[in-house]
Amino acid sequence: MIDEITMKLHGDDMILSALKEDISSEDLSSNCVLSGYCEGEAELLCKQTGVIAGLSVFARTFTLLDPRVRVTFFAEDGEEAEKGKKLAVVRGDMRAILAGERTALNFLQRMSGIATATRAIVKLLEGTGILLADTRKTTPNMRLFEKYAVRVGGGTNHRYNLSDAIMLKDNHIGAAGGVKQAIAAAKRYASFMTKIEVETETLEQVDDAVEAGADVIMLDNMPDEMMREAVRRIAGRALVEISGNVTKENIERLKGIGADIISSGALTHSSPILDLSLKNLHAV
Amino acid sequence: MIDEITMKLHGDDMILSALKEDISSEDLSSNCVLSGYCEGEAELLCKQTGVIAGLSVFARTFTLLDPRVRVTFFAEDGEEAEKGKKLAVVRGDMRAILAGERTALNFLQRMSGIATATRAIVKLLEGTGILLADTRKTTPNMRLFEKYAVRVGGGTNHRYNLSDAIMLKDNHIGAAGGVKQAIAAAKRYASFMTKIEVETETLEQVDDAVEAGADVIMLDNMPDEMMREAVRRIAGRALVEISGNVTKENIERLKGIGADIISSGALTHSSPILDLSLKNLHAV
Amino acid sequence: MIDEITMKLHGDDMILSALKEDISSEDLSSNCVLSGYCEGEAELLCKQTGVIAGLSVFARTFTLLDPRVRVTFFAEDGEEAEKGKKLAVVRGDMRAILAGERTALNFLQRMSGIATATRAIVKLLEGTGILLADTRKTTPNMRLFEKYAVRVGGGTNHRYNLSDAIMLKDNHIGAAGGVKQAIAAAKRYASFMTKIEVETETLEQVDDAVEAGADVIMLDNMPDEMMREAVRRIAGRALVEISGNVTKENIERLKGIGADIISSGALTHSSPILDLSLKNLHAV
Amino acid sequence: MIDEITMKLHGDDMILSALKEDISSEDLSSNCVLSGYCEGEAELLCKQTGVIAGLSVFARTFTLLDPRVRVTFFAEDGEEAEKGKKLAVVRGDMRAILAGERTALNFLQRMSGIATATRAIVKLLEGTGILLADTRKTTPNMRLFEKYAVRVGGGTNHRYNLSDAIMLKDNHIGAAGGVKQAIAAAKRYASFMTKIEVETETLEQVDDAVEAGADVIMLDNMPDEMMREAVRRIAGRALVEISGNVTKENIERLKGIGADIISSGALTHSSPILDLSLKNLHAV
Amino acid sequence: MIDEITMKLHGDDMILSALKEDISSEDLSSNCVLSGYCEGEAELLCKQTGVIAGLSVFARTFTLLDPRVRVTFFAEDGEEAEKGKKLAVVRGDMRAILAGERTALNFLQRMSGIATATRAIVKLLEGTGILLADTRKTTPNMRLFEKYAVRVGGGTNHRYNLSDAIMLKDNHIGAAGGVKQAIAAAKRYASFMTKIEVETETLEQVDDAVEAGADVIMLDNMPDEMMREAVRRIAGRALVEISGNVTKENIERLKGIGADIISSGALTHSSPILDLSLKNLHAV
Amino acid sequence: MIDEITMKLHGDDMILSALKEDISSEDLSSNCVLSGYCEGEAELLCKQTGVIAGLSVFARTFTLLDPRVRVTFFAEDGEEAEKGKKLAVVRGDMRAILAGERTALNFLQRMSGIATATRAIVKLLEGTGILLADTRKTTPNMRLFEKYAVRVGGGTNHRYNLSDAIMLKDNHIGAAGGVKQAIAAAKRYASFMTKIEVETETLEQVDDAVEAGADVIMLDNMPDEMMREAVRRIAGRALVEISGNVTKENIERLKGIGADIISSGALTHSSPILDLSLKNLHAV
Repeated sequence: MIDEITMKLHGDDMILSALKEDISSEDLSSNCVLSGYCEGEAELLCKQTGVIAGLSVFARTFTLLDPRVRVTFFAEDGEEAEKGKKLAVVRGDMRAILAGERTALNFLQRMSGIATATRAIVKLLEGTGILLADTRKTTPNMRLFEKYAVRVGGGTNHRYNLSDAIMLKDNHIGAAGGVKQAIAAAKRYASFMTKIEVETETLEQVDDAVEAGADVIMLDNMPDEMMREAVRRIAGRALVEISGNVTKENIERLKGIGADIISSGALTHSSPILDLSLKNLHAV
Repeated sequence: MIDEITMKLHGDDMILSALKEDISSEDLSSNCVLSGYCEGEAELLCKQTGVIAGLSVFARTFTLLDPRVRVTFFAEDGEEAEKGKKLAVVRGDMRAILAGERTALNFLQRMSGIATATRAIVKLLEGTGILLADTRKTTPNMRLFEKYAVRVGGGTNHRYNLSDAIMLKDNHIGAAGGVKQAIAAAKRYASFMTKIEVETETLEQVDDAVEAGADVIMLDNMPDEMMREAVRRIAGRALVEISGNVTKENIERLKGIGADIISSGALTHSSPILDLSLKNLHAV
Repeated sequence: MIDEITMKLHGDDMILSALKEDISSEDLSSNCVLSGYCEGEAELLCKQTGVIAGLSVFARTFTLLDPRVRVTFFAEDGEEAEKGKKLAVVRGDMRAILAGERTALNFLQRMSGIATATRAIVKLLEGTGILLADTRKTTPNMRLFEKYAVRVGGGTNHRYNLSDAIMLKDNHIGAAGGVKQAIAAAKRYASFMTKIEVETETLEQVDDAVEAGADVIMLDNMPDEMMREAVRRIAGRALVEISGNVTKENIERLKGIGADIISSGALTHSSPILDLSLKNLHAV
Repeated sequence: MIDEITMKLHGDDMILSALKEDISSEDLSSNCVLSGYCEGEAELLCKQTGVIAGLSVFARTFTLLDPRVRVTFFAEDGEEAEKGKKLAVVRGDMRAILAGERTALNFLQRMSGIATATRAIVKLLEGTGILLADTRKTTPNMRLFEKYAVRVGGGTNHRYNLSDAIMLKDNHIGAAGGVKQAIAAAKRYASFMTKIEVETETLEQVDDAVEAGADVIMLDNMPDEMMREAVRRIAGRALVEISGNVTKENIERLKGIGADIISSGALTHSSPILDLSLKNLHAV
Repeated sequence: MIDEITMKLHGDDMILSALKEDISSEDLSSNCVLSGYCEGEAELLCKQTGVIAGLSVFARTFTLLDPRVRVTFFAEDGEEAEKGKKLAVVRGDMRAILAGERTALNFLQRMSGIATATRAIVKLLEGTGILLADTRKTTPNMRLFEKYAVRVGGGTNHRYNLSDAIMLKDNHIGAAGGVKQAIAAAKRYASFMTKIEVETETLEQVDDAVEAGADVIMLDNMPDEMMREAVRRIAGRALVEISGNVTKENIERLKGIGADIISSGALTHSSPILDLSLKNLHAV
Repeated sequence: MIDEITMKLHGDDMILSALKEDISSEDLSSNCVLSGYCEGEAELLCKQTGVIAGLSVFARTFTLLDPRVRVTFFAEDGEEAEKGKKLAVVRGDMRAILAGERTALNFLQRMSGIATATRAIVKLLEGTGILLADTRKTTPNMRLFEKYAVRVGGGTNHRYNLSDAIMLKDNHIGAAGGVKQAIAAAKRYASFMTKIEVETETLEQVDDAVEAGADVIMLDNMPDEMMREAVRRIAGRALVEISGNVTKENIERLKGIGADIISSGALTHSSPILDLSLKNLHAV
């Protein structure tokens, strides 16, 4: 979650870096017409119905530029806002509002786009108990924000990165000499506080994975019937994950497999933004 | 452009930051099965036809992890690669290949997705002399990479950020007291090496902008006929930019306006990735 | 593990920071007598029998100062070296050897001290199957190095930090309203790839923890008989951790509890260094 | 000293780095049970009698996470606190208290351990006028904190690092061609504001050092009688330093040498921590 | 301009880095006599008549050390202050005033020296409409401050750096194959928001530059008559820049050329400082 | 000294920061005419007779941009080069030479200007044994380079910064209650490896300073006769420093005072650059 502590330790660095990317010396356009502090106010408007995510990041962008800026919210993360809704009022030095506008929106629109896309699929899974998970296919340096957006949209997070959980793929299995050996190596190597997932391509591998004590088993590129058989064999002794492009067309099929988790990289790598806009800036 | 110097001064920092995001202590999965250097090789495959952009970023991700990794390319940035084409071979320590794979692909897929979407629209504008420009609506901390991808796709870059050119929008104009005053203020304030663009909403503003010596005039939310009249009045004394969602449906209409530049935020904020994959990793 | 990738992404920053701490402008003592490159050689000697850990950190300290330095090892991490053994030869510019000596030893001596203390206790647990685990009681900014040293000594790592696993202590349980509620909240909140440990003080809490599906149960400040009862009730459905000062005196008692893991903060916060020395520097 | 300025310029960076080490994304355990600001209070208790050092570092750890946290002290640095004493109350958001607890204690316990060990030896030297000095054998990236702790314990600091004073050891002397030449080179090279110490192994070297104008002379590995003779020859024309493991057993012997300074690396590299604890966290 | 936003994003980093350069561990002199907060006050005096530039940088140096410091100004940037004038009063902890004094003055004196030198030449150009421009010949890492000082002195800024405008020099022209080809390459390569200047050495190159659409033409090392001819040929179709050491002696000659801009590297690389002093520090 | 180690630990950071200041995204001018590696060569010429300082910084600027650049020197630091002399040849990718040229020269010209001004005064002091010292009046973030240049010019360095030596000025003396008390406080507070200088304004203060054991005594704003009396009283028991603008006019007067050290802030804050140039770049 992007609580105040995570924002301070990790979010701020990224937001400041983004602001420096956009202002390498000064905001020429604002500075040529505004030579000093000028109190102003603008409205954050929803131009497209969708799920809002990232309001604290939006606000933090302005307060990092100028701590006197005040953002008043009329919505909260996770809310499905209607097109036209006023989400917030930003008040403060017009130079800070103009200088921060684009960066603040770039964060908020992307995060809201991901939350919106996630929510759409989560609704299709409603009542099944199946979790919709993200992947590590996030935009570089945006993982904190994008994984948060997935959760706001109702999805769940897969491991955060390569350091907090183990996922044994074909190459790891090959290097170890088999599923059992790979899981055994992982148990020897890692902390007892680390979960182990293994990707399987055959039913034999599934059996091995269960026996060796995998926490999660990914069924990779198996035909539907084989996946259903795998689920039967696993019989609740490990969580089952399947992966793939989830669309309205194939959702019914995927729901029937019996998996615990469906993961989708597209949530974070290909969701279009949600259209939001800062409007009606005026001096007050 | 992402030449070696820009990569060293700016690209490397962002790539390293992305790698640290993905490896906060170590790559547990690889380290449990590979206890030392193990030479391996993998292939970068194109799983979807599209324009490739970012090969040097892809390679740099691995060599930053381990300078001994060698990437051999069979394609170059800007090439429209067919689905199935082998784009590169990555050779080196399997631990480095496994640890860098996801981050390298996250960069390359996103950049190639942007190049592909840009190329599609550039083709629709072929023969008109109209430039397709990006905007500042880029993913935070990805501007260097995304603006480069737009150029690889055949688009042109609008200003890089708030510090290298002036764009006077309605709020700047309001603060200055009018188009003429805003442009005059900009000329007084900025370097003679800085270009000035102004957003106009009426024909009177267009006239003022030309007279005051704007370098570029943006026609903002005008009806088509009014835009055409604006172009006639400007008569080549300034470049004309129009903005908007460019689609197969509206492209014919936009082409007929007479503008020099069409800009589109969607190129960078909403292009889906191009599907690429690192396959067949094996020890050698 | 401190493989080359982790060293590059995380180790190097810490080593460089330590070198800057020791050389805020220049090494005055060396520069006043050595005005240019002067090839020299020194020996790393073991002045006290113990387990060596951190040789790659030792070497990296010198090569970060000067990539021409070469370190040849006659020992490896994990080895129990006898007092007097020559562990390595460092060869290169004498200015680099003199400038890096203290920092390189400060890392290596501390890491080896931790490995030595860990190994001593691990030996006392031999044959029991009980794991000796470290804690988060590490020296600030030294966790990477200290947790690695614990493993070199034969110990195992508890979670790396607050972000990669959940440990519900009395305050978390209090805030949630009970053990069951806390575990349920953790399962809702965290990724399915995150393990959950819970600290328990009563047998009722132990029962609740097992029922709610804790992965690991810590028995906190319980009398020995109560701990044995707890182990009986858990019956293998969760791992059992106990904590405390492990000494020759109390080890027999602790071994008899039936826990899977014994954790000890003293391994990292109070182990004395292992005495090592760089000797016989001479020009060659 | 760790005044507010040094804390801001140097302490904060190290504390923040330590917090990021412990929270690479978020504090999962706290965030799953506490979804927002929740005022709480905890007590810092002394679990072992000893000298407290680092209270401002302890407090700063929390206020860097959340500036609203307030720490009220009932002790001050340098105080010898009895086991059981309440040293401070920490009040603020329970999430900040839980997230900062371990890092704050890791600093404070280590610093207090060093101060306690230093005080013990300083007491043995009481009335002799002999200074007890630390060395550069500090934990990497902890020098600021550890050298401060030595002073709090009643010790004095040797040079801070390689850049603020000169210490000519055997290798420097060898490279220069003798003690006199080395000191002459140092005087030519360094600022007139830099003090020069030289390590001597023979009485001839001692004579040379005095004659060449060394500020401090270290007697290195000499028999006691030889040291006493060296002190007689130096006759107050330079400060005299001896080094070694100071213990109750050998202190009487060392006191009789006549040196001005006794230095000890063990103060910073091998002192066990002082046991402190944050207890009784509760909502208020 | 150094508005609050630019100060926060870029100025603060440089000021903090300068403070760390001057205080690598602590301010020993102040800390030995001041053991805690001690309110004091000092005056900033002008010891030499000149143009003041950098007051906000001066103040920020103190508030970065201690946010409680208050600086009251009796002058503003751009003012020509008489020798003896009291420019400001600094009030706060005497330790912060003493620790920040030198760094604050090092910034302010250098910036004011540049503003003073610029103003002197700007006065010689008064009434001509000719702009006096700086160059990229600034002190490393001081560009932001030095270019600002030039503007405060009445000068104008040339391009900020290599990334915000194009300047084609002889080597670029040679690489492209001629002036026309170089300008064409620049137009193809760069954004339409980027201005292009070209250095010319012959009248043919001047003709080519105008024809190819250069925005600014630099006349490089031409005899006066040739420069006048160049200006006649350009006829207002591009701005004309000449460069050189501007002194009282040659100013009349340069004024007669007809150029729009005279640029001078000496403004930033060789202006002596303006003598300012912090005096009368006393406890209050 | 700027040996390879200091360059690596401190110089590189500053040079890279200066390069990023000059290249915030890319070198547009070079990249539009040079699309790839193009071997070239240029000559570093001395356009004004003076003392060269900073050749390694000059070279490092290029090799940080591109490690393939090779710089061959025909001069060395400290050499008084005649106008017209070829100092070096730079060979490598023309893009790197063009991109680094300005930054490399900005360092070298400034450092050489300081060395030249220092040498001029050192010559005036020749045969007197009086040292010419710099001060802390250096350009922010340039201290390492500027203090080195002073030494190359034949000057000596005063303390590096506030952390490596003590200088008690009127405010410190006032806070302590007198010269004796201030020196006593300094001796109590600081390491025995720290030198203490005290500024005196009266002969009584001079007497107190000697008696209290100051290492260096600064005579501040005293009439000449009083300074001579002070020197007599000090009688070699402390070094004597006087400060002031050293010019051909007043040098005879200052030489007669009998001081050991004359310090001058103008060396670093007001020396004009030495004119150097990179010429004849051509492809090879």
